[in-house]
Amino acid sequence: ASDDGEGGRASPLRVDSDSLQRQIDELASFSDSPAPSVTRVLYSDKDVQARRYIKGIMKQLGLSVREDAVGNIFGRWVGSEAELGAVATGSHVDAIPFSGKYDGVVGVLGALEAISVLQRSGFQPKRSLEVIMFTSEEPTRFGISCLGSRLMAGSEELVQSLKRTVDNHNVSFVDAADSAGYKIHPEDLHNVFLNQDAYFAFIELHIEQGPILEKEGIPIGIVTAIAAPASIKVEFEGNGGHAGAVLMPARNDAGLAAAELALAVEKHVLESGSIDTVGTVGILQLHPGAINSIPSKSHLEIDVRDIDEKRRNDVIEKVHKSAIDISKTRRVDLLEFKIINQDPPALSDKSVINAMEFAAKQLGLEYKLMISRAYHDSLFMARISPMGMIFIPCYKGYSHKPEEYASQEDMANGVQMLALTMAKLSLE
Amino acid sequence: ASDDGEGGRASPLRVDSDSLQRQIDELASFSDSPAPSVTRVLYSDKDVQARRYIKGIMKQLGLSVREDAVGNIFGRWVGSEAELGAVATGSHVDAIPFSGKYDGVVGVLGALEAISVLQRSGFQPKRSLEVIMFTSEEPTRFGISCLGSRLMAGSEELVQSLKRTVDNHNVSFVDAADSAGYKIHPEDLHNVFLNQDAYFAFIELHIEQGPILEKEGIPIGIVTAIAAPASIKVEFEGNGGHAGAVLMPARNDAGLAAAELALAVEKHVLESGSIDTVGTVGILQLHPGAINSIPSKSHLEIDVRDIDEKRRNDVIEKVHKSAIDISKTRRVDLLEFKIINQDPPALSDKSVINAMEFAAKQLGLEYKLMISRAYHDSLFMARISPMGMIFIPCYKGYSHKPEEYASQEDMANGVQMLALTMAKLSLE
Ligand SMILES: [Mn+2]
Ligand SMILES: [Mn+2]
Ligand SMILES: [Mn+2]
Ligand SMILES: [Mn+2]
Repeated sequence: ASDDGEGGRASPLRVDSDSLQRQIDELASFSDSPAPSVTRVLYSDKDVQARRYIKGIMKQLGLSVREDAVGNIFGRWVGSEAELGAVATGSHVDAIPFSGKYDGVVGVLGALEAISVLQRSGFQPKRSLEVIMFTSEEPTRFGISCLGSRLMAGSEELVQSLKRTVDNHNVSFVDAADSAGYKIHPEDLHNVFLNQDAYFAFIELHIEQGPILEKEGIPIGIVTAIAAPASIKVEFEGNGGHAGAVLMPARNDAGLAAAELALAVEKHVLESGSIDTVGTVGILQLHPGAINSIPSKSHLEIDVRDIDEKRRNDVIEKVHKSAIDISKTRRVDLLEFKIINQDPPALSDKSVINAMEFAAKQLGLEYKLMISRAYHDSLFMARISPMGMIFIPCYKGYSHKPEEYASQEDMANGVQMLALTMAKLSLE
Repeated sequence: ASDDGEGGRASPLRVDSDSLQRQIDELASFSDSPAPSVTRVLYSDKDVQARRYIKGIMKQLGLSVREDAVGNIFGRWVGSEAELGAVATGSHVDAIPFSGKYDGVVGVLGALEAISVLQRSGFQPKRSLEVIMFTSEEPTRFGISCLGSRLMAGSEELVQSLKRTVDNHNVSFVDAADSAGYKIHPEDLHNVFLNQDAYFAFIELHIEQGPILEKEGIPIGIVTAIAAPASIKVEFEGNGGHAGAVLMPARNDAGLAAAELALAVEKHVLESGSIDTVGTVGILQLHPGAINSIPSKSHLEIDVRDIDEKRRNDVIEKVHKSAIDISKTRRVDLLEFKIINQDPPALSDKSVINAMEFAAKQLGLEYKLMISRAYHDSLFMARISPMGMIFIPCYKGYSHKPEEYASQEDMANGVQMLALTMAKLSLE
């Protein structure tokens, strides 16, 4: 039974991991791509179904439920000293195209199970406990990652850009929200901002999305810092033309410029010399996209991350220089080289790390202090609250694809860790 | 007036080039992308509108109109010796996404104007004259170029593949044809085949799609051979994963494999040492296509052409070897390397070249004997009929993009050439 800690010590925190697995599987059925893949994009019908599902569980647990203007969902178990800052947890349930069912979801359904565990154990919170389902952690639809938490953390820049943001089908953010049942008036967006004293602590439970815990056989990761992500959009333009008729010396092929830049991203990342630097070209599109047409335009989206902000920014500068060089050599125009976001890294708070280490020891769970290379809503929650994260192992480190998997035992350990950490902080 | 040949000799063949331009502009309005671009894909609503428009002009000219099972449209001016093989001309009106309004269209509307010119001049054909609008010269929808002419030329292989071919939205060829009003029974496809004696000659009028005639100031090109096209589909597959969490040494990025192969195509083409070898990656798609996901799959479509079949096939072999090498180096699977078509080049028939040269001299038009580097329905008509092609200059050699342009004067010269060549062959 997964509710027995290692070392044979019985714990009063009995996780119903079968129920948790059932909920994960049920949520995965709200998908726009066939199982085992999951596709759940912001404000789509499936996203709306998932939101209804999460609110349903919150209500079953007797939590008081509220939603803000953009659809961040809050379920609160009011503590005996309700005027104190709450202890919050949460994650996301949106899923990029053809991904898996654990990313984000473990941190939402697992958090609700942690509340349920505490309720069943007879625990009475002093500080209120709150579960948050964040809107659009993934950048899929509007190119903005951690939309909900970024806004909660008070980004005025985001308020302004949301007023004019459109998706790839030219649907505005406001219209998309409306179709999901959120009627947004421009002044509402500021109401999403949270005060610095709203939360005493924020803890996110998440699969590692990397192979380390599984490889080392350690059940729990305690995150000390979140790597700093940056994303860049690039557009090249050339003359295009007929694939048969335009001879090679007369070409300025925007597609080959994009191919060169993609390989240059890899080269500059590897040249950083650090294992912690990663760079990815996840999007590369050609226009017009016909076999007998030389590409006249290309569009790339590049993701660069590091735990060292300066080293990451050096890579971005080199990629920019390569884009300029390629545009000269291939006589294509560099129409755009736009840094969409370039966030600083975040450190976990010592007080939250202490609480997590205390919980791990209480539960007899071995743990590893580690870095999060993927970013999370916690990156933005750290701006307004002491923050910490709990990682659990996942199969081969797979994430963002259908093979993503975490065992019931590992999830139960994570839920126990989260429950005990929250309980401890609630009483401080 | 464009109906005066060079050298000041008056000609009885008076081309109404304003009317021709009006028709070209009107046809361009049937498009799924905004002007000045044209997008007209096989069996789409716009394609159906264009078909109706062409049949309308044929009927106005008193031609007897027939359509075959896949929608090749024939308008015949019956000659005094109707039992003889006819003299045919024609081209296509389908247009790849975001292309221009002259490719193909000049050879259909120009052919109808040539018929009109001959009618107005009082000419009486002995052999029947026939204008053909071919179905789907462009491979856009089903990946099959020159679908209509390839089938007319008797490809049993194409009959079999059309029964199971689907487009990118999984719509079958048969269902797509049905939606455009062509109900195809499998046995009908063989009825599209034409006999070897159906035509005494076939001549296609087309913009050059290259810069030579414009640069040299020569109004007419007489095509002696059509370069041999080949097209290839390639799929790579890797493990994908999260763009933040999977470290660089653990990656096998299918997108970077595609980028390397695209650059390898260019390298092998340039290494052939011949100006006549061209290679293009017009399609490069990544899956899942999210900024924070390492591509787990990539799909490329490659076009390689040459006037020398062996040299072209050598390039294809080298590209295949590169694909295998890249898959090994990057530890991705080469799921597919499929040669979709690998057609032999075609030579124009001496008798048709003679008739075209005679017409040019009669009209006082300077001409150049040249190669067609783009392929055309003529490539397949050459399998069942003596074939020839007439080229006219186009602006900067542009084609397959909105800037594609041919002057009214150059089109009028082309129409006169076509009319006189057909008239001469009709009386042989
Ligand atoms: Mn994710
Ligand atoms: Mn996540
Ligand atoms: Mn074309
Ligand atoms: Mn054409």
